[in-house]
Amino acid sequence: MRRWVGLVDDWVVERGFEAVADTLRRQAEADPSFSAQVCVEVGGAPVVDAWIGPELDRDSLVCLFSSSKGLSALSLALLVQRGRLELDRPVADYWPEFAAAGKAGITVRTVLTHQAGLPEVDGGLSWKDLVDGHAEERLAAQRPLWRPGSAFGYHAATLGVLMGELCRRVTGESLQAFYERELRRPVDADAYLGLPEEHEPRVVEVPVPDLSALAGAMPVDQGQLADLIAGLITDPEAYTELTHSRRARALGLPALGGVGSARGLARVYSSAVIGADRPPVLDAATVAEFGQVHCDGTDLCSGLVQRFGVVFQKPLPRRPFASYQAIGHDGAGGSLAFADPQVGMAFGFITNRLAPPGGEPRADELARAARECCLRG
Amino acid sequence: MRRWVGLVDDWVVERGFEAVADTLRRQAEADPSFSAQVCVEVGGAPVVDAWIGPELDRDSLVCLFSSSKGLSALSLALLVQRGRLELDRPVADYWPEFAAAGKAGITVRTVLTHQAGLPEVDGGLSWKDLVDGHAEERLAAQRPLWRPGSAFGYHAATLGVLMGELCRRVTGESLQAFYERELRRPVDADAYLGLPEEHEPRVVEVPVPDLSALAGAMPVDQGQLADLIAGLITDPEAYTELTHSRRARALGLPALGGVGSARGLARVYSSAVIGADRPPVLDAATVAEFGQVHCDGTDLCSGLVQRFGVVFQKPLPRRPFASYQAIGHDGAGGSLAFADPQVGMAFGFITNRLAPPGGEPRADELARAARECCLRG
Amino acid sequence: MRRWVGLVDDWVVERGFEAVADTLRRQAEADPSFSAQVCVEVGGAPVVDAWIGPELDRDSLVCLFSSSKGLSALSLALLVQRGRLELDRPVADYWPEFAAAGKAGITVRTVLTHQAGLPEVDGGLSWKDLVDGHAEERLAAQRPLWRPGSAFGYHAATLGVLMGELCRRVTGESLQAFYERELRRPVDADAYLGLPEEHEPRVVEVPVPDLSALAGAMPVDQGQLADLIAGLITDPEAYTELTHSRRARALGLPALGGVGSARGLARVYSSAVIGADRPPVLDAATVAEFGQVHCDGTDLCSGLVQRFGVVFQKPLPRRPFASYQAIGHDGAGGSLAFADPQVGMAFGFITNRLAPPGGEPRADELARAARECCLRG
Repeated sequence: MRRWVGLVDDWVVERGFEAVADTLRRQAEADPSFSAQVCVEVGGAPVVDAWIGPELDRDSLVCLFSSSKGLSALSLALLVQRGRLELDRPVADYWPEFAAAGKAGITVRTVLTHQAGLPEVDGGLSWKDLVDGHAEERLAAQRPLWRPGSAFGYHAATLGVLMGELCRRVTGESLQAFYERELRRPVDADAYLGLPEEHEPRVVEVPVPDLSALAGAMPVDQGQLADLIAGLITDPEAYTELTHSRRARALGLPALGGVGSARGLARVYSSAVIGADRPPVLDAATVAEFGQVHCDGTDLCSGLVQRFGVVFQKPLPRRPFASYQAIGHDGAGGSLAFADPQVGMAFGFITNRLAPPGGEPRADELARAARECCLRG
Repeated sequence: MRRWVGLVDDWVVERGFEAVADTLRRQAEADPSFSAQVCVEVGGAPVVDAWIGPELDRDSLVCLFSSSKGLSALSLALLVQRGRLELDRPVADYWPEFAAAGKAGITVRTVLTHQAGLPEVDGGLSWKDLVDGHAEERLAAQRPLWRPGSAFGYHAATLGVLMGELCRRVTGESLQAFYERELRRPVDADAYLGLPEEHEPRVVEVPVPDLSALAGAMPVDQGQLADLIAGLITDPEAYTELTHSRRARALGLPALGGVGSARGLARVYSSAVIGADRPPVLDAATVAEFGQVHCDGTDLCSGLVQRFGVVFQKPLPRRPFASYQAIGHDGAGGSLAFADPQVGMAFGFITNRLAPPGGEPRADELARAARECCLRG
Repeated sequence: MRRWVGLVDDWVVERGFEAVADTLRRQAEADPSFSAQVCVEVGGAPVVDAWIGPELDRDSLVCLFSSSKGLSALSLALLVQRGRLELDRPVADYWPEFAAAGKAGITVRTVLTHQAGLPEVDGGLSWKDLVDGHAEERLAAQRPLWRPGSAFGYHAATLGVLMGELCRRVTGESLQAFYERELRRPVDADAYLGLPEEHEPRVVEVPVPDLSALAGAMPVDQGQLADLIAGLITDPEAYTELTHSRRARALGLPALGGVGSARGLARVYSSAVIGADRPPVLDAATVAEFGQVHCDGTDLCSGLVQRFGVVFQKPLPRRPFASYQAIGHDGAGGSLAFADPQVGMAFGFITNRLAPPGGEPRADELARAARECCLRG
């Protein structure tokens, strides 16, 4: 019987964390088509770095979909920590055009907690709108679809537009450039908002699924709000562009265009939130503020029960992937990444098949195994 | 095989809208006791005007129950558009007695979105209270049953009292008179708040149902808040008075006392929201403001999941009758009426049997068929 | 066949209230292990005072668990009525240290309605923290676990710490002392926050249950917020100390350390809310303010649907124990006590086995029987 302590197949599995590797192995045995990477850092050092399955190896990169939002949120948290961006100031203070159509009083906090009622614009956003800057203009002109603050609904695509424009207005540079310089490059993390061309050969493209099934993941009928929002990601052309083009990977849209490995995800969260030799980039108060639950209940867009901090997803009963102190985000592609200050852990996971609605249960299972290892250790 | 294009039995069925007529026919075949009218206007002109079943014909009128609230809401929207009524001002600015019992700060918006906690008064409202002005006094004196803004619950009967008194305080005239002059008469719509005597012969009275079954529609037990609220409509005397008396039809209470045909409902919504030769009575910003989702979730009174704009009901996953831009309202008697700016459509439907809890599914089915015709057209 | 009118086995069962006694008898027949007391006062006089089962007799006392919160809440309501405490002032006005970690603006109302996000402190509270004053310090320093006002979650243990400290800051004395002097002693009610030693022999200790089952009552997994909160009450040591020590009974912690009989519970609520020869301690406006629904929906901590007034639990569809005007509270030990101004009734119930999640259905059944007797009477 194989043992998973130390280097096996080049895996890193520190003593006390064998359960994580065992879980991954069991998952692969149960589903031979399953390919995944998982990486766990504790106290700033990797304790698990493993990969399995026919389609991903040690160095594979995948499209992160909405796990990108976590990387973007770490960037915005840093802007808040530095006092460049204030959560309780109106967005229009930074972005005057945003005041249109009754939005003068909407705060940064309201926008970053999916409460602003801007998950889409009338007539729908196209992929082209997202890449050429028209999305910013159209969102600035849009009347909120619900009264801001009265409800929350996942801003699947538009939250990235809003985060990106806030960063640009405050710093003069793109969120991608800010993330690259402040968070990724200092620790050479393998998780990109804007993939350098040299890493292209490492990318494993997620197959284009039956997108009608994906639309079904939004449990709402034609003509509904959520349907409108699902429209973008269920448009085969947009979907293919996002997941199968060098252009999209080079762009690294803040909401869904990141590319990375499990190792890279764990690295960024570890460096930003946990620290090691040097303190984490984000102080404890900033992490706590972004990690504070702001919304809990039925998401107006997805119809799912959700729980959000500031941008970040929070663990909740149906997805207990970490402690209440954790900040993280998952992606439609099955990825999951978070940091949990309670146990000093950062976690990254990628796979290359779309997750079922509500998230990839194998990611959660691995996260919980890792957490239990920490609590026992 | 019969075709439904053009005039059949005097029906209007424009080319491209046959599916609506087919749906109605199928519904009647499946349930021979089913009687209904359906009317669809697109761009201000009827594209479907049809009726079926043993109990309703082309010219029948029925009690609109809460579909009346939609007609009243169109009237209030016009007052807001004209600057006579401001959604974010305290009700007490217009109606000083309303400030009693901790209500000084409650805004018009809070009241018109079922959030004011005034679905009933201690001791219960009677039919007599509703018709003789005591309901206004008692509501003005009442302490909210929940903290205003902390929850929402359908103000089945009292919303009409509140809308009516707001109109009276602002204009000096009854909401019924305002509606008649500003919205109904200019287009001679067959949907009345206060039925002229000459139309009495056209009225088909909805049979008095087993009201204990109706109480069951409020899924809450004796002694509960919702039970109290259900009290009025499940009182056989009040119910019979509302549905079987000339007095009630002449009065046209804003919450539930309207009388109309499907054609009349479609006409009013079309003229108010869609327009044709002349622009609609309500401009797009007003419609968007009243159509903005203000409440979503479990209704404290009915226990049902509901979604409200300002007065208007919004489509929601279990009732996807239109796009997210639509404003409308249904009634316990099975009627449904709305306008959907997204496709330039107005819709009216009546039947003469009480709807199951949560609405008449056949009305929704017809509305969706009409919408699909628009989207294909 | 035995009759339950008048004195039977020393029971009090007034004419018209036989159904309550019959219900109790039926419950005992169906479950021979069931022991309970039930007491109903109407208009300030007992109409039912009955007990049954192998383990409780006329004079038994039990640990009240969270029914203690109701006694504490009556005390705070009196402080509000006297103008000593204002619901809409920041807690920090009374307790300056509380302003730490972003809590400067949190009002008394937010704290007393389970909305402040302080159901626990990072690292967890121990029983020792609760008894030695460290809990106050740690709560004052704690960052809210959710954004105050954005959600609500049952503050099972910490609400007592917060209520106690508010009372101390405002009056200079403990909540227990205030309750004793102002509410309990004047009517010699058999319901204590701090049990005098002389009553120790009357105490029937609730057996220590399988606490893992109790943890299951919080339907949330390891690592979750609710799990953290359940930690205290599922700690066998803390649990045993609370339910099996003279120390804990002498202390009478405001959230869960009260001791009483059904008669005592009914007496306190009756005297505070209903009155008889003399007016009730609390005026109608104060009762209405504390009884106003402030939160309704899924409780972030327990995962259960709950409805809260200011501290008090409100009847709700799954627990229709009284009218919408009632204020009361139940306890994990199965006790339930409330006053219902609508019918002028006060109700007390104790048993000596832990209740299932969501409350003891036999208590609710007895309460409804009593209410129906009132409505018929």
